Amino acid sequence: MNLELILEELDKSQKSAEMRLFELLRFKSISTNSKYKSDCFETAEWLVKELSDIGFSSSLRRTTGNPMVVAHSDGVKSNLLFYGHYDVQPVDPESLWQTKPFEPVIEDTINGPVIRARGAADDKGQLMTFVEACRAIKTVEGKLPCRISILFEGEEETSSPSLIPFLKNNIEELKSNHALVCDTGMWDAKTPSITSSLRGMLSEEITIQGPKIDLHSGLFGGAVPNPLQIMSKLISGLHSTNGRVNIPNFYEGVEETSLDLLSEWEKLNFSEIEFLAKLGLSNPVGESGFSTLEKLWNRPTCEINGLWGGYIDEGFKTVIPSKAHAKISFRLVGQQEPEKIRKEFRNKLIQELPSDFHITFSNHQGSKATQFSLKSQIMSEAKEALTNEWKREAVFVGGGGSIPIVKHFKEILDMETLLIGFSLDDDQIHSPNEKYNLTSFHKGSRSWVRILNKLSKLF
Amino acid sequence: MNLELILEELDKSQKSAEMRLFELLRFKSISTNSKYKSDCFETAEWLVKELSDIGFSSSLRRTTGNPMVVAHSDGVKSNLLFYGHYDVQPVDPESLWQTKPFEPVIEDTINGPVIRARGAADDKGQLMTFVEACRAIKTVEGKLPCRISILFEGEEETSSPSLIPFLKNNIEELKSNHALVCDTGMWDAKTPSITSSLRGMLSEEITIQGPKIDLHSGLFGGAVPNPLQIMSKLISGLHSTNGRVNIPNFYEGVEETSLDLLSEWEKLNFSEIEFLAKLGLSNPVGESGFSTLEKLWNRPTCEINGLWGGYIDEGFKTVIPSKAHAKISFRLVGQQEPEKIRKEFRNKLIQELPSDFHITFSNHQGSKATQFSLKSQIMSEAKEALTNEWKREAVFVGGGGSIPIVKHFKEILDMETLLIGFSLDDDQIHSPNEKYNLTSFHKGSRSWVRILNKLSKLF
Repeated sequence: MNLELILEELDKSQKSAEMRLFELLRFKSISTNSKYKSDCFETAEWLVKELSDIGFSSSLRRTTGNPMVVAHSDGVKSNLLFYGHYDVQPVDPESLWQTKPFEPVIEDTINGPVIRARGAADDKGQLMTFVEACRAIKTVEGKLPCRISILFEGEEETSSPSLIPFLKNNIEELKSNHALVCDTGMWDAKTPSITSSLRGMLSEEITIQGPKIDLHSGLFGGAVPNPLQIMSKLISGLHSTNGRVNIPNFYEGVEETSLDLLSEWEKLNFSEIEFLAKLGLSNPVGESGFSTLEKLWNRPTCEINGLWGGYIDEGFKTVIPSKAHAKISFRLVGQQEPEKIRKEFRNKLIQELPSDFHITFSNHQGSKATQFSLKSQIMSEAKEALTNEWKREAVFVGGGGSIPIVKHFKEILDMETLLIGFSLDDDQIHSPNEKYNLTSFHKGSRSWVRILNKLSKLF
Repeated sequence: MNLELILEELDKSQKSAEMRLFELLRFKSISTNSKYKSDCFETAEWLVKELSDIGFSSSLRRTTGNPMVVAHSDGVKSNLLFYGHYDVQPVDPESLWQTKPFEPVIEDTINGPVIRARGAADDKGQLMTFVEACRAIKTVEGKLPCRISILFEGEEETSSPSLIPFLKNNIEELKSNHALVCDTGMWDAKTPSITSSLRGMLSEEITIQGPKIDLHSGLFGGAVPNPLQIMSKLISGLHSTNGRVNIPNFYEGVEETSLDLLSEWEKLNFSEIEFLAKLGLSNPVGESGFSTLEKLWNRPTCEINGLWGGYIDEGFKTVIPSKAHAKISFRLVGQQEPEKIRKEFRNKLIQELPSDFHITFSNHQGSKATQFSLKSQIMSEAKEALTNEWKREAVFVGGGGSIPIVKHFKEILDMETLLIGFSLDDDQIHSPNEKYNLTSFHKGSRSWVRILNKLSKLF
């Protein structure tokens, strides 16, 4: 592989690569709301065409939800399977966006130019770094250095309901020597990183009902139970005063951080003060007795992601609502078992619920946490490739978020995953004004060329 | 006054009275949301015309909010000033309505025919009982039995921001011997009642902010504070385990229920079990050591009327929101001072707020509680009139809701109020499927004719 020529090709075609990414970013592929179903479908069709253009044999594969995109460079049984997701988070509150979320623009900032749009970093910009790397290699070499398959899904932001059946039904087609996922971040704008662990996740939506109808708080207040007050009490009971999650057996399977990892993390020169200051905060919170990096990467959490009930519009309505609702998620580490915790969580709430109340739970999927060995050959080759591109030693970091695909690849396809991505802490993914640095996009593509160059020699 | 002829006239014109009320109910006069401002204006115009048709000298009076309707039978300095409000509560969640909220219908129920629409009972149906009474008297007698003025406002459901300035600017015009308000209920469908006390009210909207932007709960969860969790804790802290409101000096000014009142209430044969069962409940809650009637009529409360933050739409978004919001109201009794309590409430929350959090309060108006003597001549004449119409002894009851106008009439116009209304516990005011019994509407009008007949002799 003529590495220098390929990297040059990427440099030359940077502008057209940006235009291709902009096309992808214009699709409103929000998977959390069913009204964007046809937008998701159109996004998948666009990707199929894009991969065909590069020479992949690609197809749109229907599921009961949003379709998958599958592509092969040289038929099935590939050496590498690259995974990304084309769906994005909702944009609300849209009023906080300074540009239109689905009209990407390049914006000059004090940290250099950025691409501003929903999905720029999570995950459309990231998945396109790999697609552009393949395009450049094909342009220069006429072929890829090893057999590569690609899988893009459109339900990552809704816990991937179609993914497990799809993987199970297509094991022979998808199983490869190793998986690549580009949905993680860099340590900072100059330091590339490989994510060596991910927290798992469990999410639940709960509704409690007390009085059978909404009531006037003047006529009934004082003699009937208020679901909003009860919900507040249930939520308050989910944490102890020391910041620990207050659910029986919750910490079963949580493991101490290894010395290897602690020594890697020490190299990062992480500043808790700066971390908090960027968020407008100054006081550490959470589980006492742990460093911030441990809290983010190797300790479990319980967070309230949504809470509502009663009159929440402009003005005032003196109502005692019949119902209250909450969306709650847990991040899991080590060997914590999502389904065991779900059961304990539900039992706890049922037990704490006052008489006359009903509770219903909506079952969202759960996934266990993941750890990779720092010492595999794939890890060290990838680390060297990243170090060469960014002229700074690549680091191993933990991942606080969950990428359930990693667990599914292991369990269903018996395949390990390499997690490399180029987003930054300030990319505001899942928030208004999401962005992706132009440098992440361009040097991200260059990084994949170097990684493919090295990894292809292992097969 | 030829009482029998007038009552006959009301019976004959019942159908056309219903049609007039239907016209009024079709206006979307929701005052809590500014997008219905022009609907409120049109409602007021309709009322002006209606009162003119009966022979009142009536006019629409602009305010900085929704307009007032003022009408006089014989110029200013009336004997009686009748008050009602033409604005209504929001209709959400509209999906729970079995008919369209602003398309009134007559529906046969096991308890007889009802008028189903937003505002049917609160307060359009009630105010029209008085208007129809005046119409029938004028038709038969050609004139009213004493000087009557009418005041309708359009901001009752939003704490009446324009009312105090309007009363203060029009003291000479509005001051009368006594006020009549038709915005309360009957004890049950067969037993008329006079409300001899009202709870006051204080309402506050609060917003707390922690992190300066919304954050991803995977990338940040565990090391940053979650405003929804903090809000839940603040709300949980507003009540003690014995059901008392946990705010310093909150109970200052709360008075024991008088023996007179307790003996009136004993006559009511109130069943706590039935009261709860109607609401789908079986266990008494609230402040321990008090009967349900005391809790509703002579004990103060703190209720959460709205609570929201984070992702509250379909699906799941793993966000730690920057902000959380709540709408909270207090019902006050005895000599409790709204502004003192507001201050204590705000101080308490400010003190309990963790560092790194900001809190903002929206100032809604507050009003003190009201008590009337059971022994005045007006009270006994009105009680007799009601007893004659309903063929059952009228009773004195407490009012759990707040009608701030009563306090304003006293303080600004130095005028006492007589509170008589015909709505029922199951009218679902402020809830979906609000209704007003046809009997309440018709016999309500007949009751006012009898009351005016008696009261007019006192002036």
